[in-house]
Amino acid sequence: MKIIIKNGFVVNTESVVKCDLLVEDGIISAMGGGFEDEAATVIDASGKYVLPGPIDVHTHMDLQAGQFRAVDDFYKGSIAAACGGTTSIVDHIAFGPKGCTLQHQLDVYHGLADSNSVIDYGFHGVLQHVNEDILLEMENLMKNGIPSFKAYMTYDFKLSDDELLQVMKIVKKVGGVLTVHAENHEVINYLRRSFVEEGKTEAKYHASSRPPHTEAEAVSRLIHLSAMADYPNLYLVHISTEESLKEIIKAKENGAKNIFVETCIQYLLLTEDKYLLPEGEGLKYVMSPPLRKQKDCDALWKGIQKGIVQVVATDHCPFYFKDKIEHGLKNFTQCPNGGPGVEERVRVLFTEGVMKNRISIQHFVEIASYNPAKIMGIYPKKGNIQPGADADLILIDTEKTGVIRGNMLHGNAGYSLYEGYQYKGEIEMVMQRGKIIVSQGEFIGNRGDGEFLNRILPIL
Amino acid sequence: MKIIIKNGFVVNTESVVKCDLLVEDGIISAMGGGFEDEAATVIDASGKYVLPGPIDVHTHMDLQAGQFRAVDDFYKGSIAAACGGTTSIVDHIAFGPKGCTLQHQLDVYHGLADSNSVIDYGFHGVLQHVNEDILLEMENLMKNGIPSFKAYMTYDFKLSDDELLQVMKIVKKVGGVLTVHAENHEVINYLRRSFVEEGKTEAKYHASSRPPHTEAEAVSRLIHLSAMADYPNLYLVHISTEESLKEIIKAKENGAKNIFVETCIQYLLLTEDKYLLPEGEGLKYVMSPPLRKQKDCDALWKGIQKGIVQVVATDHCPFYFKDKIEHGLKNFTQCPNGGPGVEERVRVLFTEGVMKNRISIQHFVEIASYNPAKIMGIYPKKGNIQPGADADLILIDTEKTGVIRGNMLHGNAGYSLYEGYQYKGEIEMVMQRGKIIVSQGEFIGNRGDGEFLNRILPIL
Amino acid sequence: MKIIIKNGFVVNTESVVKCDLLVEDGIISAMGGGFEDEAATVIDASGKYVLPGPIDVHTHMDLQAGQFRAVDDFYKGSIAAACGGTTSIVDHIAFGPKGCTLQHQLDVYHGLADSNSVIDYGFHGVLQHVNEDILLEMENLMKNGIPSFKAYMTYDFKLSDDELLQVMKIVKKVGGVLTVHAENHEVINYLRRSFVEEGKTEAKYHASSRPPHTEAEAVSRLIHLSAMADYPNLYLVHISTEESLKEIIKAKENGAKNIFVETCIQYLLLTEDKYLLPEGEGLKYVMSPPLRKQKDCDALWKGIQKGIVQVVATDHCPFYFKDKIEHGLKNFTQCPNGGPGVEERVRVLFTEGVMKNRISIQHFVEIASYNPAKIMGIYPKKGNIQPGADADLILIDTEKTGVIRGNMLHGNAGYSLYEGYQYKGEIEMVMQRGKIIVSQGEFIGNRGDGEFLNRILPIL
Amino acid sequence: MKIIIKNGFVVNTESVVKCDLLVEDGIISAMGGGFEDEAATVIDASGKYVLPGPIDVHTHMDLQAGQFRAVDDFYKGSIAAACGGTTSIVDHIAFGPKGCTLQHQLDVYHGLADSNSVIDYGFHGVLQHVNEDILLEMENLMKNGIPSFKAYMTYDFKLSDDELLQVMKIVKKVGGVLTVHAENHEVINYLRRSFVEEGKTEAKYHASSRPPHTEAEAVSRLIHLSAMADYPNLYLVHISTEESLKEIIKAKENGAKNIFVETCIQYLLLTEDKYLLPEGEGLKYVMSPPLRKQKDCDALWKGIQKGIVQVVATDHCPFYFKDKIEHGLKNFTQCPNGGPGVEERVRVLFTEGVMKNRISIQHFVEIASYNPAKIMGIYPKKGNIQPGADADLILIDTEKTGVIRGNMLHGNAGYSLYEGYQYKGEIEMVMQRGKIIVSQGEFIGNRGDGEFLNRILPIL
Repeated sequence: MKIIIKNGFVVNTESVVKCDLLVEDGIISAMGGGFEDEAATVIDASGKYVLPGPIDVHTHMDLQAGQFRAVDDFYKGSIAAACGGTTSIVDHIAFGPKGCTLQHQLDVYHGLADSNSVIDYGFHGVLQHVNEDILLEMENLMKNGIPSFKAYMTYDFKLSDDELLQVMKIVKKVGGVLTVHAENHEVINYLRRSFVEEGKTEAKYHASSRPPHTEAEAVSRLIHLSAMADYPNLYLVHISTEESLKEIIKAKENGAKNIFVETCIQYLLLTEDKYLLPEGEGLKYVMSPPLRKQKDCDALWKGIQKGIVQVVATDHCPFYFKDKIEHGLKNFTQCPNGGPGVEERVRVLFTEGVMKNRISIQHFVEIASYNPAKIMGIYPKKGNIQPGADADLILIDTEKTGVIRGNMLHGNAGYSLYEGYQYKGEIEMVMQRGKIIVSQGEFIGNRGDGEFLNRILPIL
Repeated sequence: MKIIIKNGFVVNTESVVKCDLLVEDGIISAMGGGFEDEAATVIDASGKYVLPGPIDVHTHMDLQAGQFRAVDDFYKGSIAAACGGTTSIVDHIAFGPKGCTLQHQLDVYHGLADSNSVIDYGFHGVLQHVNEDILLEMENLMKNGIPSFKAYMTYDFKLSDDELLQVMKIVKKVGGVLTVHAENHEVINYLRRSFVEEGKTEAKYHASSRPPHTEAEAVSRLIHLSAMADYPNLYLVHISTEESLKEIIKAKENGAKNIFVETCIQYLLLTEDKYLLPEGEGLKYVMSPPLRKQKDCDALWKGIQKGIVQVVATDHCPFYFKDKIEHGLKNFTQCPNGGPGVEERVRVLFTEGVMKNRISIQHFVEIASYNPAKIMGIYPKKGNIQPGADADLILIDTEKTGVIRGNMLHGNAGYSLYEGYQYKGEIEMVMQRGKIIVSQGEFIGNRGDGEFLNRILPIL
Repeated sequence: MKIIIKNGFVVNTESVVKCDLLVEDGIISAMGGGFEDEAATVIDASGKYVLPGPIDVHTHMDLQAGQFRAVDDFYKGSIAAACGGTTSIVDHIAFGPKGCTLQHQLDVYHGLADSNSVIDYGFHGVLQHVNEDILLEMENLMKNGIPSFKAYMTYDFKLSDDELLQVMKIVKKVGGVLTVHAENHEVINYLRRSFVEEGKTEAKYHASSRPPHTEAEAVSRLIHLSAMADYPNLYLVHISTEESLKEIIKAKENGAKNIFVETCIQYLLLTEDKYLLPEGEGLKYVMSPPLRKQKDCDALWKGIQKGIVQVVATDHCPFYFKDKIEHGLKNFTQCPNGGPGVEERVRVLFTEGVMKNRISIQHFVEIASYNPAKIMGIYPKKGNIQPGADADLILIDTEKTGVIRGNMLHGNAGYSLYEGYQYKGEIEMVMQRGKIIVSQGEFIGNRGDGEFLNRILPIL
Repeated sequence: MKIIIKNGFVVNTESVVKCDLLVEDGIISAMGGGFEDEAATVIDASGKYVLPGPIDVHTHMDLQAGQFRAVDDFYKGSIAAACGGTTSIVDHIAFGPKGCTLQHQLDVYHGLADSNSVIDYGFHGVLQHVNEDILLEMENLMKNGIPSFKAYMTYDFKLSDDELLQVMKIVKKVGGVLTVHAENHEVINYLRRSFVEEGKTEAKYHASSRPPHTEAEAVSRLIHLSAMADYPNLYLVHISTEESLKEIIKAKENGAKNIFVETCIQYLLLTEDKYLLPEGEGLKYVMSPPLRKQKDCDALWKGIQKGIVQVVATDHCPFYFKDKIEHGLKNFTQCPNGGPGVEERVRVLFTEGVMKNRISIQHFVEIASYNPAKIMGIYPKKGNIQPGADADLILIDTEKTGVIRGNMLHGNAGYSLYEGYQYKGEIEMVMQRGKIIVSQGEFIGNRGDGEFLNRILPIL
């Protein structure tokens, strides 16, 4: 089973090289030129870029959140991801019955994903509560394929500061990664309650009830806690504000270490004026943290350019618009919280980043593939194009353009937050472990062909 | 009733002037020379410094804290203060029955202080809980003589983040000052619990259970909350760590405003090795925050020099050693929490600051008298030597030295945290509103002569 | 000879006190109330501010600069200063015959000033060249009334870097102050030459030929040289750019010490668009450094607010407009370089600073009187209102306004750079050493009544 | 002509991959595995690292500096380089007869190098004077193979500030690189003169006469000049002090761009106490800038770690010890200035950096190969291992160790500054464009086989 990809520009984080790739048994076996093999399939990549498969390390397939369930299961969600050029995801094993073990949820999610996902997938452990048993279980899981855990500082399953500290100590001891949703619970709850009491229930109050300092405060708090645990690997998910970045920059100047920052594609170009859209359209954008101001978008791009922000993910968590309307129109606090994005990420980020000259194509690889792979323990199999790596590849033709239409996407939501967005750079082909799964926009893979990512401890 | 103070060096924050002072009816009526009045009492201040009366804005007389009561009442405590050169204090109206009004506590404390205090005294309002009634009461009190309120982020009466936010909005609206004890409650509680469970109950674990980042985190949180309230006057009490100062400096660089920092004299020279003293001696130093490391002392001095730290107070809150031993020897968490200091502050700060050349004598006036007066709304009556100001004065003779002996102090505790400390610069005389109340170390004032400070909103 | 100034608001750097002043024999003998003396003259200052006499430490009376001579001699120039509320100046003993001693120039300037100046005056030594004799002479003069020296980094008498270093070592050794005009000579000369060669000879090219980095570079160079001399007192005259302030701030962060910054009033509100004025009007503003952009004005105000800029002076150096036109209209490089300002400074700075709420009135005293006095060795006789200080005072009525008209000023230039400027706050009276020299805008002093300021080494 | 390098760990800046390399016609034609070709030479790299050939962009072969000539010509010097693992150098075309054209010197150096160098070589243009002809010539040369130019701020051929500005504008216009030796000429000359006058002529005064601020000042000046030229690519050679790094960091924070920093291997581990060595040994270390203190070494390493320092070169410029003694023993200012290093660099840097865990092996490639190649316009042919790149490779065996002995080195100097240094990591083989030129420490290449590097404008 050999494939030769000819004449493409092969992109890694520090180089763009015109060369051929030889793929054998799902692995990149050689880079260079002059590979000849009559039995091999030849793919002509002339004039196109060959990139290591993008990885989305922040998705929520099959998430039950309160009374709502995210509408993409692992089958449809992973097809959407694949069609958007993403070859691996790291999802979450949340949320289970109160007090359940981590293994319980892991089993549940294996059940949901194993025979359904069309691309490779891993799971973040999710911490619903903390006690000695959980800490012990964490320790074992980190050494056995689940090096990353997710903690919330808000919502029902929020951890207290001392629980976060206990978790951090375990993470430090073992060498895994703690990913955290950082928002100040008490203030947000108070503001939500106050707005509702004052009859301020429109979508725009979703943003007002989570002002930038609620995020920045939680970020600062986390970093202080991490200092007390001697700086375990700390991964701040979906950072959305300039204020948070300022905290992080200053903390690093003051000696903080091992802090990694994720933002999501929506925070890089959508702004809070979306909440003013009429007829409940604004509800589509109800997610937490909320969309912010243009100055925050600018700060996040600058953060990417300076290496403060290492990863761009999605927090893909779609709900039907009709449910958003039904529950949220009269009261934003009742609106299902989240939106789709896993299919749009690569095209939008490539356009906004590379084609608009904010970052180089190498830097795109860094934030979309390489860094996620390194931090989440799947490098060097994923995240780069080198002999020995998995042949997870996409081909991009920068001459081609397209328009995002919600009704043509492959997830279940049926709408896009980027409706009408004109992108530059079309994804011509998506290959996973040597198999073409998307060709010219059409999914041609198989249900269940995705493999579970038995991840390692990150080497950072 | 006229007094002429002759030939002293009169010190204000920006000047040292050799001139005479004319005092009439308790007020400085003139500065200069050549005052002649046969009826006047003449005080010869030749070769001595005349300073505006030092003010201690952080004391706890008659404090009932759980099962323990601070052992200095307003009579004995104010005598100690006076003998230490302090002519005004701002105390706290804490803690009353759960749910009581502020006025209730104000009445209680007027009852305790009015006919007892020998020096002028004001009260910080103390917030035990927050609701609309309390907020309204705060608003009224701030406009009527109590411009400052105290909130705790730890202990039983801790406020939640949203309560702090609500309080800050009122303070911003009216223009008062919020003083806050900033420590992370959850982490400290967890660490205390853990240490006790592990049998680590000696005094030194008091320090270990309140690591520097528990303070710095709370400071950062407060500043973020204050940002959401558009930066009301925020006064951080007893800051003890380099980490907190870093937070404050960083926040200011990022735009934070109206932040004032107090440290206490003990944090400037005592260090955590005191907790290792044998025979329970270490328990004398059990207070919160705990004593820190030499690097923290150094950072606090630097903070004073750079104007980051504006006030040096005491947090005077003494308990009997026998009670410390009885309750704390087997378990530091049961030890009454606090120590004496109101009598030692001026001599120790003058020695460490002025005589050891860390700060100028003008700067001493700034941190011991002028800044406390300005921030707490009693300037220009107090905190400076100018015509029209109250004749609250002390005379210091820098040629004289002395040794602090706990058994010679005037408070009830009977011991000093500075036992054996050799100070330079003796307080020759203490005058309050034109009346000499301490002469050559002997108290010669009268019970109840102190007046309630009907404070104004600070102009900063 | 007694005077009582009644009911004014007496302003010092840290206080505004309503009190009376008693002046005897030219000295403030007492501050307070109730002074009664039938023989005394009584001045009613009700509702007015009483300020310590402003000091302009950067003037050039009788300056011969190449073929041009500044048009104000010490008589007319000092009357202008007095009418503008300035009670002391520190002028320059420049420039003499090549190779002359400092004493030679000192004698020349005593000859020019002693029987002419109507206000007190001192001299900065001016370094035209450096050798062992000059260094020795400097050392002697610093100890004998001339603690400050001026060096130029551009113009004919520029010092080389090693000469600056030698001078700094002497200044460090003795404890005086080096004041420096900091601009990069080589680059400015090149740009001037280039512009002329290209026919770019209009006034606006004066600004273009001295871009901000020519100043900032020289500032940085100076600070590095001062580091090699262990940080003598270094006083940077007429700083005009944001870039220079950035250098200074960063240098201080990196450990630089004893740096003092002066700006001049014109750099705080006039901008380079003045150079575009028609009919040669732009030439009036040809001075070095040139006027800058609004962002620089803003940065300088911020520098004042933050204490980075300690002094606002004038660099008063007027020339006749006809001479500016005659020599400069065809070629800006031939235009006499400098402008008037000594009479306008106080009114403009008071209006822009205090009345527009950029700084407090106390801060005005700091930058216009107190700091100049301290840095230049005439504090505590000058620069504050305290018993024992010279009775150099001005009365300001903030209710009164006025308009600056060049033809009503008292200097010889006959025009003002602030023509038509509406100021708020009129100077009602100017007193020097107890004698009223200006009353209601009219000069009523005497030629030669100014005294030479036998200055001391600064205590900073 | 095919070569297969089997089983090595192939190192690039962001990856270490175990794979085989196929080399055809001097070019890396493929990376991967399973290459089979009976005609191919097979090199077994099992257990060894394969690195892109190190590049030394700061050497002085055949340099005539005043009366002295550097003792390595291009033949012997390039053999030394090759034996030290360096596969390319960029040398200097300095110094020619006063007023000569750049082309004149280029011709001279082609004459010296073309038939002699055993490795690839390029030339920096060297600016001895500036005028319109030179600027025009620069412009042409930058577009034709010589994108980098060297300017000196000290020595006989120093450029003035305005000349530097003119040069920078051309560099900015075309897009080349200006490399600069930054030291303050006037101060150094003065100090040298002073020391000699005072009889302070020992080697240690070489260091004292060039204090750290003489370098930092020049660095700051350069950056201000570059600001005025809108930030051309500026490459600061042989930075040796913490103070300079502080300047650079600060300038970047204030907006400076396109600044690249080189240090040399000697500044990373040798310190000024070498100048105290007896019997003239100290003279071996007389070079400019001089060796500094340990704190400077530490700061430079930190600068490397933070990416402030991008390149480690040598400034290889050897002289005979006997000449150093003869001329320098009585007077350090007469000592030939410079030392050998081209053969030692890779081993020492690898040991100090990689083996002592200061940097990763990828980072070693970055500062020794990749960055020099990118900045100097020879990437992607050099500086990385990718299909299409030149097969310039070294094999390192980290299990092997060795000791540096001056008498075993291949240059003419006959001594080493690292005499007795124990390195870890032996260079097993050096390949240039597919040809093995050093094997087991023995040079097996041919005179004149080095090719002239026709460099391109850097893409940074």
